[in-house]
Amino acid sequence: MSDLKRAYNFNPGPGVLPLEVLQQAQSEMLDFKGTGMSVMEISHRSKEFESVIQTAEADLRELLAIPANYKVMFLQGGAHLQFTMIPMNLRAAGVSADYIVTGTWSKTAIKEAQKLGATRSAANTEADGFKGLPDKLDLDPKAAYLHFTSNETIHGVEYFVEPTPPADVPLVCDASSDFISRPIDVSKYALIYAGAQKNAGPSGVTIVIERDDMIERTPANLPVMLDYKIMATSGSLHNTPPSWAIYMVGLVLQWAKKQGGLAAVEKTNRTKAGLVYDTINQSGGFYRGHAQTEARSLMNIPFRLPSEELEETFAKDAKKNSLIGLKGHRSVGGMRASLYNAMTVEGAQALVDFMKEFQKKNG
Amino acid sequence: MSDLKRAYNFNPGPGVLPLEVLQQAQSEMLDFKGTGMSVMEISHRSKEFESVIQTAEADLRELLAIPANYKVMFLQGGAHLQFTMIPMNLRAAGVSADYIVTGTWSKTAIKEAQKLGATRSAANTEADGFKGLPDKLDLDPKAAYLHFTSNETIHGVEYFVEPTPPADVPLVCDASSDFISRPIDVSKYALIYAGAQKNAGPSGVTIVIERDDMIERTPANLPVMLDYKIMATSGSLHNTPPSWAIYMVGLVLQWAKKQGGLAAVEKTNRTKAGLVYDTINQSGGFYRGHAQTEARSLMNIPFRLPSEELEETFAKDAKKNSLIGLKGHRSVGGMRASLYNAMTVEGAQALVDFMKEFQKKNG
Repeated sequence: MSDLKRAYNFNPGPGVLPLEVLQQAQSEMLDFKGTGMSVMEISHRSKEFESVIQTAEADLRELLAIPANYKVMFLQGGAHLQFTMIPMNLRAAGVSADYIVTGTWSKTAIKEAQKLGATRSAANTEADGFKGLPDKLDLDPKAAYLHFTSNETIHGVEYFVEPTPPADVPLVCDASSDFISRPIDVSKYALIYAGAQKNAGPSGVTIVIERDDMIERTPANLPVMLDYKIMATSGSLHNTPPSWAIYMVGLVLQWAKKQGGLAAVEKTNRTKAGLVYDTINQSGGFYRGHAQTEARSLMNIPFRLPSEELEETFAKDAKKNSLIGLKGHRSVGGMRASLYNAMTVEGAQALVDFMKEFQKKNG
Repeated sequence: MSDLKRAYNFNPGPGVLPLEVLQQAQSEMLDFKGTGMSVMEISHRSKEFESVIQTAEADLRELLAIPANYKVMFLQGGAHLQFTMIPMNLRAAGVSADYIVTGTWSKTAIKEAQKLGATRSAANTEADGFKGLPDKLDLDPKAAYLHFTSNETIHGVEYFVEPTPPADVPLVCDASSDFISRPIDVSKYALIYAGAQKNAGPSGVTIVIERDDMIERTPANLPVMLDYKIMATSGSLHNTPPSWAIYMVGLVLQWAKKQGGLAAVEKTNRTKAGLVYDTINQSGGFYRGHAQTEARSLMNIPFRLPSEELEETFAKDAKKNSLIGLKGHRSVGGMRASLYNAMTVEGAQALVDFMKEFQKKNG
């Protein structure tokens, strides 16, 4: 392994995974726990796989301190399928749902919900370029739920304090890109969902945490793959689950526990993001962050350079230095550094060293 | 690797994968093609991942000789989500769809389709214990489509000649458990779908092959994850795909090509199944196959022993001999040997050696 070349991976997702997680997956590839089979080859009804999924759930419950009256599900179809399942399962006929729109992902979520029934926009920051969180919310006290996106991956806008819905309006959150990046109070939420491919594992599995009384809202006769009640009561094993992706999530959760849990993970995340934001702040305007200071994401940091030409050069030179995945999304332009849990402080330091060097040369 | 212990894996799915595929995945785990990243860590928009998915599609097109007027999709949610997507996409309001019910899987498919609109059963062999193919079909000449299950994993009943729908009625096939096990004439089908976790890869990805005129039936305004048109036109990249599972499917397809293509794969499959069926036939009634001779599956062979007690002993003793996954589904009882593409002739031989030995001791 001495000649192992690993990139500093700033991809927005799928993104960096902890090296020791990959090494464990590699070592168990041909013989998972003495079965003589890969984890991909064992039955999802076997005691070995039951242990994989149950341990993953137990570790997630421990990390996030999930109360007993919540179910944990491992589903397929990414956050996109949740955009459909949530209104299908939680919004009764004739009732409207509220959405806070703070970036591309919440905009997509409300669009999907609109296809199936009534929605309201409780706030929409698009006119301001999706740069911050809304000052105030126009909330429907009878909404089926209030949906928000805790971190907008493309615009780099993050909620550090949850919005407060009216009494009796359940809070629903797309936490895909800041899931398990810091402790949260799960009891404030009715449902939390997250595509795994940012902080929690590879693509191909979506984690859903739903409060029991919400599960009781599931209408009768939904297609089984769109039915939270069936998925929750079957322990995500009504049909064949995405075994490998769940296994990888399990390894990542064990890794997060070894880091000292989510308080420790948050501390490291703040250190990494601090390095990059400080470099932006101290660049005298050479680097300009997209998001307003108070809404700046710890996970995704979109920033611009003085010209598109310099941005092209930046991306190219960064790649030569093994700094990968820094090109921003076309809707924002410029660069974006994604600093998910598995990005090391060393990697963030390598990025800011490069940024300073690049400014010296080109500033 | 000299002390590598690999089981003979007869699991019904997820099931056995080719050893050399696992070894390649293992060797590329920390650095996929010089990227310094795992294939799980690279962007699904990167040229490296585009090559993965495009090569997988090209290899599948070559193996199955898929005509140019068909699209190939890599989706999530297993065959179960296809049970929903097919009627949603292909059955116009007020039109009925025909289903041939020959086992648990086609029974589940029609049940899901019934939730969303009109269906007819063109045949149902349940009263006969799902042991064979129907003698005749009661076909609706105006059906939106005719659906059949080419191989019933639980009951071990396989179609070797496709049913013929009325003129203008498209043929739709759940090929999950005999996909790429032998050549088929794709031009007879309007849509073929298969969960990968039998012959084609790990769980977590479903392959859909759909004729272009069918894709044009997709109604407007479906949820994106349930919309064939969006998935087909985006090359399965509208949202983040299940990258790892697609990568593994790609490796399995390359392996199948190295075997000499599907004609060679079928030959080996016939050899393996022949070994087991011959042993059943020559056991003087000690082993009794579930399916009728003419419908006997090459993939899944359910069989009974003289008593449930002996069946328990058989499973236990087999496991001691590293013959894994032979317990049958509770709905049929007894044993089941799944002989997917990656099962070697050596493995099938080990099974029949064990069967003969077991009969000697216990017959």
